[in-house]
Amino acid sequence: MDKHPLRRHIEEITTLTDEEFAYILTHFGTVHRRKHQYIVQEGEYVDREYWVVKGCLRASFFDYQGKEHILQFAMEDWWITDYEAFNNRVKAKISVDCLEDCELLFITRENREKLSAEMHKMESFWARKTKLSYIALQNRVLSLLKDTAKERCEKLQAQYPKLFQRIPKKMIASYLGVARETLSRLY
Amino acid sequence: MDKHPLRRHIEEITTLTDEEFAYILTHFGTVHRRKHQYIVQEGEYVDREYWVVKGCLRASFFDYQGKEHILQFAMEDWWITDYEAFNNRVKAKISVDCLEDCELLFITRENREKLSAEMHKMESFWARKTKLSYIALQNRVLSLLKDTAKERCEKLQAQYPKLFQRIPKKMIASYLGVARETLSRLY
Repeated sequence: MDKHPLRRHIEEITTLTDEEFAYILTHFGTVHRRKHQYIVQEGEYVDREYWVVKGCLRASFFDYQGKEHILQFAMEDWWITDYEAFNNRVKAKISVDCLEDCELLFITRENREKLSAEMHKMESFWARKTKLSYIALQNRVLSLLKDTAKERCEKLQAQYPKLFQRIPKKMIASYLGVARETLSRLY
Repeated sequence: MDKHPLRRHIEEITTLTDEEFAYILTHFGTVHRRKHQYIVQEGEYVDREYWVVKGCLRASFFDYQGKEHILQFAMEDWWITDYEAFNNRVKAKISVDCLEDCELLFITRENREKLSAEMHKMESFWARKTKLSYIALQNRVLSLLKDTAKERCEKLQAQYPKLFQRIPKKMIASYLGVARETLSRLY
């Protein structure tokens, strides 16, 4: 029998017994959302972190002039929420909506804290994931500070070719902080 | 007797007994570095994370045209290293040098892993610190994408007034990704 995709994902970092995974899974819920629906809305409290089984989402926010900026995308195997709202119990600054019909697993803050306290493996798993996310974000800051528009596009395409094919180019441009015309000239 | 500054720092997140802190401290070493000296150099492996007892540092890197960009500053109570190099055992992409004479505590990757495995409190402490760093960095990305030069300056000044007084303005400008002239016009 094929392994559950979440088990495969966790086992990239740590191994689990059948019993351990079954127990972990009892702490997750499943939701289905259609394209255009929101899972996190600006101004609301957020007590769930989502893991993408199927589909594609974006985290975005509006600046004072009403211009939209994209902070993050998520596809299969990625985690997404407003982490500041989720971790610090403050209202969301960003929104997360579905770019396709989505199947998601979610864990509440309470269940995540419970699992971390009960299972050292899961605390280590989340610690490792947070470190990797921090490194990825740091590389994004480096790229925003030093790379040209062309270099940013090339790096994203090399790193996430599927994302590049799947997401409308105007959203890619917003994510990279480049003009849509620049991206159109390149692709 | 005054508490050790590192104990005060850890106890912002979790409480420690005298014995626990004494044991933790045996895993740290002390170094003194003069202004202009490096603690992390681009292209080298990094097996230490530093905690600032006294002084001020910057993490920076050069782009292809040799222009310098500043990724992070650190002052008393802050942690600093090249986290990608430290966590993923790859060569450093950035350099960290002292902007003042510095007194630093450091922990090796090996000792950090050992302490995390032995003391659940320390694993939770580092997990929490990593989450907070991630959130701070995410807010920096939001700011780089949406805020004007003036807004970025004002936010940094409001959030870290000491940093703003202590660091040369041209470095502040580099960190914020704004022209030095813009900053000079404002301050």
